[in-house]
Formats: sequence, structure tokens, C-alpha cells
Amino acid sequence: MKLTERLYKSVEDIWMGYLDQPFVKELAEGTLDVEKFRFYMIQDYRYLLQYAKVFAFGVIKTEDPELMRRFAGMVHDVLDGEMNVHKTYMARLGITEEEVAKTPSALTNQSYTSYMLDVANKGGPLEILMAVLACAWSYQVIGEHHVKVPGAVEHPLYGEWVQGYSSKEYADSTKEIIDCVDALGENITPEQEAYLTDIFVKCSRYEKLFWDMAYAMEM
Amino acid sequence: MKLTERLYKSVEDIWMGYLDQPFVKELAEGTLDVEKFRFYMIQDYRYLLQYAKVFAFGVIKTEDPELMRRFAGMVHDVLDGEMNVHKTYMARLGITEEEVAKTPSALTNQSYTSYMLDVANKGGPLEILMAVLACAWSYQVIGEHHVKVPGAVEHPLYGEWVQGYSSKEYADSTKEIIDCVDALGENITPEQEAYLTDIFVKCSRYEKLFWDMAYAMEM
Amino acid sequence: MKLTERLYKSVEDIWMGYLDQPFVKELAEGTLDVEKFRFYMIQDYRYLLQYAKVFAFGVIKTEDPELMRRFAGMVHDVLDGEMNVHKTYMARLGITEEEVAKTPSALTNQSYTSYMLDVANKGGPLEILMAVLACAWSYQVIGEHHVKVPGAVEHPLYGEWVQGYSSKEYADSTKEIIDCVDALGENITPEQEAYLTDIFVKCSRYEKLFWDMAYAMEM
Amino acid sequence: MKLTERLYKSVEDIWMGYLDQPFVKELAEGTLDVEKFRFYMIQDYRYLLQYAKVFAFGVIKTEDPELMRRFAGMVHDVLDGEMNVHKTYMARLGITEEEVAKTPSALTNQSYTSYMLDVANKGGPLEILMAVLACAWSYQVIGEHHVKVPGAVEHPLYGEWVQGYSSKEYADSTKEIIDCVDALGENITPEQEAYLTDIFVKCSRYEKLFWDMAYAMEM
Repeated sequence: MKLTERLYKSVEDIWMGYLDQPFVKELAEGTLDVEKFRFYMIQDYRYLLQYAKVFAFGVIKTEDPELMRRFAGMVHDVLDGEMNVHKTYMARLGITEEEVAKTPSALTNQSYTSYMLDVANKGGPLEILMAVLACAWSYQVIGEHHVKVPGAVEHPLYGEWVQGYSSKEYADSTKEIIDCVDALGENITPEQEAYLTDIFVKCSRYEKLFWDMAYAMEM
Repeated sequence: MKLTERLYKSVEDIWMGYLDQPFVKELAEGTLDVEKFRFYMIQDYRYLLQYAKVFAFGVIKTEDPELMRRFAGMVHDVLDGEMNVHKTYMARLGITEEEVAKTPSALTNQSYTSYMLDVANKGGPLEILMAVLACAWSYQVIGEHHVKVPGAVEHPLYGEWVQGYSSKEYADSTKEIIDCVDALGENITPEQEAYLTDIFVKCSRYEKLFWDMAYAMEM
Repeated sequence: MKLTERLYKSVEDIWMGYLDQPFVKELAEGTLDVEKFRFYMIQDYRYLLQYAKVFAFGVIKTEDPELMRRFAGMVHDVLDGEMNVHKTYMARLGITEEEVAKTPSALTNQSYTSYMLDVANKGGPLEILMAVLACAWSYQVIGEHHVKVPGAVEHPLYGEWVQGYSSKEYADSTKEIIDCVDALGENITPEQEAYLTDIFVKCSRYEKLFWDMAYAMEM
Repeated sequence: MKLTERLYKSVEDIWMGYLDQPFVKELAEGTLDVEKFRFYMIQDYRYLLQYAKVFAFGVIKTEDPELMRRFAGMVHDVLDGEMNVHKTYMARLGITEEEVAKTPSALTNQSYTSYMLDVANKGGPLEILMAVLACAWSYQVIGEHHVKVPGAVEHPLYGEWVQGYSSKEYADSTKEIIDCVDALGENITPEQEAYLTDIFVKCSRYEKLFWDMAYAMEM
């Protein structure tokens, strides 16, 4: 069994819980309050800026040129790829970069990104990939679930979100991270795996709190 | 008005709220469930290890020999001073270093310490001091409040805690940080002060969450 | 006078000395020993991997999304742009990535890149740009000097190097860094400028030592 | 054979060369130009400030409380112990802290300390100890050699230096580092040992360059 398969088992229950979380569920059903989505979009944009930094730590923390290029590509994918979905939504919802810059991060958002950056600063390439994996992968799981919900992908506002995270392009970017984790994780010790699992579970718990934060429009 | 005086105003309401927080209140009144205190002691010991690292960042992030020595002294004060109170309690409550090492950090604890370390890693001496100030100073405020509660300092279990954080020695260590902040903060720009205030408020909110975590014995 | 104009004055003498340095001079005249060039190519490839990391620090050390994107683009330009010139040469000279990976960095190379990374780790966006500016800019100065040396650009081996560093594309990438420095450096204090100048002068001295190292095939 | 015994073999030739290096030799014989010694004292004081930072990285890079305390103690030993020898000399030679602060680091000094800090920032506790070991240990070797040179320890100016680095107290502080390396290095892989050896050899080469820098009064 591959490392990522073992890791998946450790968070499966948490992830399945996302699908019943009100924000995630109502987004699929198209009943989500647009104000909640607007709040989420701003916080998530702020999140992604920090998420990109985690990948940038990857460039710094490896001496393997090929892996450096991959991490650099991932930084680019976030800042100029995934963020484009956000930019389209921001334009539709009348959110400017200035508004994003002026809006403080909710404490849950801050906690999650500080944790990822702390892990990245202390760790190596594998810990860095682990810090981003829960976000990258669980969004794919949610996207692929939502795309099967009748009407979800046709929804005038939320359809594009569902489409983005269920797209082949998004699945490919996640697969790159997963493959990278499995390749680097081939000969790790049980202690290393315990630490990686801890990171993965903590990030999965933060994901849940992030959805709750968005639904409650924290602060 | 000194910088720390302005900072204090920005968190006064949050700090006054600590005194009504059940964990803090019951500790003063001597009615706190010992299991909650035991939980707190373990989590706080784990917290202090990370707190010491924030000061160690201070040694790294300044080129002023005198300030380096101060930060080094603060690392020492935490690891060999403040922690001695914890060690005494740990011995009394039958908590070993092994149990502390095996107990995972509650997510609230992890969030708070990751935030401090992220701030320290990104910032300079003043941001580093700001990341520790809310903890250092608000404990003094609580200690000095509690010492006036009838019976608090004589309590067989919690009296020593009250005594420690209301002691002159503890007040001196806090004063050193406060004086250092005021000295370094003399000519900062409004943008810098806004950022420092943001750190100070966030840490004050984390302090509240930490007390709540302890009372709820989170996880 | 712009910051970069003042900075240029502080290193002009050192940079003019590059043009008389045997490695640089013989490269222009086409008389450079191919073994020295081969040595240089391996060391410079190793240098560029660390140089890319300095830009990656820039992604981490700014909260401005636009500046993050620029730094990310610079990481990409180094790893997938400038390095392509090296890859072409490596193919021609029979240098494999394995040979590069196995060859240790000469101590001068190590000193220079450690210095840049230390500055980047300690500093902010402006210090980071300063750590790369001497390399980026002085190569353009050398390229634009060499392209006027009769026969230099037509040389079967060294012509491509001269062409690369005298190209409009390379000048554009340098101009982006220079413009960025001037924009960020508009309101700096004399103390900040003194530190930036110190970085710039030190890196310019390391550039000279790097050429000497290549000519001597150090170690 | 312990790790440090294997490491010693890898640098023995370099270290034996120190004893013939003019600065080191003339210091033993008491013939060293006082101006050279003054230059050295200023540069070495600046070196020690960075050296202390390397140990501070150790506090940050371990989760083991006992090891954190050791690193914190080593920071203290440098800033308030080893530096006291320097302070006595500075008083005798009329060197003020201001003069030290204003004197720029010679490029060799900067290279060495940047390298140590870069290693510390990238690595874990063992790499951090390795970055300081060559300095700590080779000074003991020199001190124990010099103390046997007739008249060395009685020399009015240099005797105290010889005494300090041949003292039991200094040997104990070195032994603590050596024991720590051997304990942490028990189950390392050959790849890890190769990297540690590379750090140790590079630092040993920097030590030689540092003595040369002092004798030449570089810059």
C-alpha cells in the first residue's frame, strides 16, 4: 500500500464529514447564501497566498533540481492558475484586490496557514508536501462529489467552482503532489510516517474548521 | 503615551474577559477540577517549549550584541525558570516528561504556537517580542488579580501558581520585555504599529482560546 | 538619482575590473581554455540552483500578491530560462546533471551562495533583490561589453554565451529587478541604504572571486 | 569507531596545518604583531556573535526539551562565557563595542559565518552541531598544543588566550558538543554522514582561511 493510501485512511472519516458540512453541502445544492460565499472567497484568496509560500519553501528546502522545478511550478499553478478561478469570482462578486488586502484573516484562517508555514519552515520536502496535501486533495474529493449532484455544475454562481475542482486539470495538479509524496516517501521510518500523518490529520481538521469559519462568517 | 500603553488599550477588553473565564476564575477560587488543571499543565508545558523558540528567533534576528544577550537570557528564563514551576506541579500531579512528549498538542495550542513561530520567522526583534508579550504580560495581570482573591495564594494546589505569576521575579521578567518593546518601538511608522497591534490582538485572542481549550479539555 | 544609480556608483570600479579579469577577457577574445569554461559551467549551474532559492525567499517574505507573482516568475526565469543556456552548453560539453550533482561546490561558490541565502533568510524583499542584483546586472554589463568585441558573438563555443547575456530578453529580466529595487527603495532610511550597499558591494566582490575561481579551476 | 573519531580523520591534515600557519605559530611563540592580534580580536568577536546564532538555531530545530536546554546553554556559554575572554582583551587593546560594531566583517569572516548560518537554517540539530564543531574543537587542539610551547602561557599578551583555550572549562564545553554529536549520530545513513563530513571539512577549510585573513589583516 502506498504512503498516500495509508494517509487517506487516517483522514477518511474527517473528509467524509466535509460533505455534510453546511457550507459544502449548500454549495452543492446551490442554496448557499451568497454573502457566505463572498466571505469565503476573500478568506480563501488570502489563504492561497500563504499556500503558495508553502510551495516556495519547497524550492528552498531541496537540493534536487528536478524537485525544485516542480515546486516552482506548483507556486506558479497556485498564483496564476488556481487563483484565476478566484479572480473570476472576485470580479463577479465585486471584490477588489484592495478589499482582499484590507480584510483581516479570520483567526481560523490564520491558524491554518501559520501551521502550514511553521511545518514548512521546520521540515523538508515531504513535510512541505504533507502540509498542502489535505487542502489540494480534499478539494478534488469534494469537487468530484459535487459534480454528480444534479444541477450543481449548471448552477449560475457555484457551477464554476464545482467545475474547477472536478476538472481534469485540477486532478492532474493533485496527482502530481500525490505522486511526489509517494516517491519521496518510499523509505521513510515509522517515526517519520507518524509525523507526516500528524501533519495530514491536523490539516484535515483545519479544513473542517475553515468550512465552519466560512459558514459562520467568523468575526 | 508609550507603545505598550497604546497596545494595552487595544486588548484591555479581551484581557478583562480572562478574569471571567471559568478556568481562570475557578483557579482563583480554588474550585477548579484538578483534571482540567492537569490537562492545562501538560499543554502549557508543550506551549512553553515553543514559546522558548520564539525568543531563540530573537537571538537570530538582531545584530545588536546586547539585545542578543537579552533574548538568550529570556530563552534561559523560560526553559530553566518559568518551567520550574511546571516541573514542581508535574511532580505533584504525577506527570512525567515522557507523558508530556507523548501527549499531542491540542489544535488550539498548535495554532497559537505556530502563529507565534510564523511571526518570528518572518519578522524582526519587535515582532518577536510582540508575539510573546500577550502571554507574558496577561499572566502577570491574572496573577496580580488572583493574589488579591481571599484564599487564592494559600490554596494547597493552586496557591503556588498564583504566587509564581504574582511574584516580583515574574513581574521583573515581564517588565524587561515591556521596556524592550518601548525602546525598540520609539520611532516606528503607523503601518508598523498597525501590524504590531494585529499580532498583539491575535495573541490575546489565542490566550482566551487557550483557557477555553483547557477548561473543555479539548480533544 | 535613483537608488540603483547610487548603488551602481558604489561598485563601478569593481565591475570595470571584471573586464580585465582573465576568464572574462579570454571569453570575449575566444582564447579561453575550454577546460576552464567547462569547470565554470558546472559551478555556475550549481550557483544558479541556489540563486533560484534566493528568489523563492522573495515569495515567502512579501505579503504583496503582485510582488509574490514577480518573485515566482523570477524563480521560473532562472530554473527554466537562464538555465537553458547552461543546458545547451552542458550537452555540448558532455556534462550531465549527474556530474553536476556529484561535483562539490568550490568554496568560493559556496561562500557566495551561502551569503546570498543568509541575507535572504534574514531580510525582506529589498535585501533579497539586492543579493541577486550584482550577479544579474553585472552579467548584462559584461554581455553588452563583449558583444562589441570583434568576433566574440561569432565564436563557435563562447558566442552563444555572449549572445545570451547581451540579448534583449536578458536585459528585460534585469530591468525588472532594477525597477523593482527602485520602486521598493523609494523611502528607505540612510541606515537601510547603507546595509543594501554593503550587500551589493559584497556580492560584487564575490562576483570577482567567482571569476578568479573559474580561471584557477579552484580545487 | 565513533562518528567524531571518523570525522576527525577527515580533517586531521587540515588541522595539523593550522599549527604551521603564521598567525597561530607566532601567537604560540609570542612574536605575533599586536596589530594583527587586534585585527583578529575584532573579527573574532564579530564571528562569535554569528556563532551564537548557530546554536540558537539549535533551540528552534529540535523538539527534545533536554536538547533545547543544551543549545540554550551553549548560546549562553558563547555570549557570556567565551566572549568574556574577548572582552578582557578588548579592554586591554582599547577596543570598544562601538569599534567592533562599526568595523565591517572581512569577506572571509562573512563567508564562514554565512555558510554556518545557511547550514543551520536548512538543517537539523546534527548539521547545526557540525557547523560549530570545527571551530570549537580545533581551538582546543591549538590551545592544548600551545600550552606546551615553552613560555606561551606566560606571555604577557597571548598567555591568557593560550590559557583560555587549553583550560578544563573550555575542554568541557567542547566535549559536550562532541558527546552530543556522537549521541545524535548513532544511526545515521551513509548519505547523512557524507553531508556531515562535507560540512566539517568545509568549516575546517574556513578556519584555515580565517587564520590567513587575520595574518594578512584582510581589507
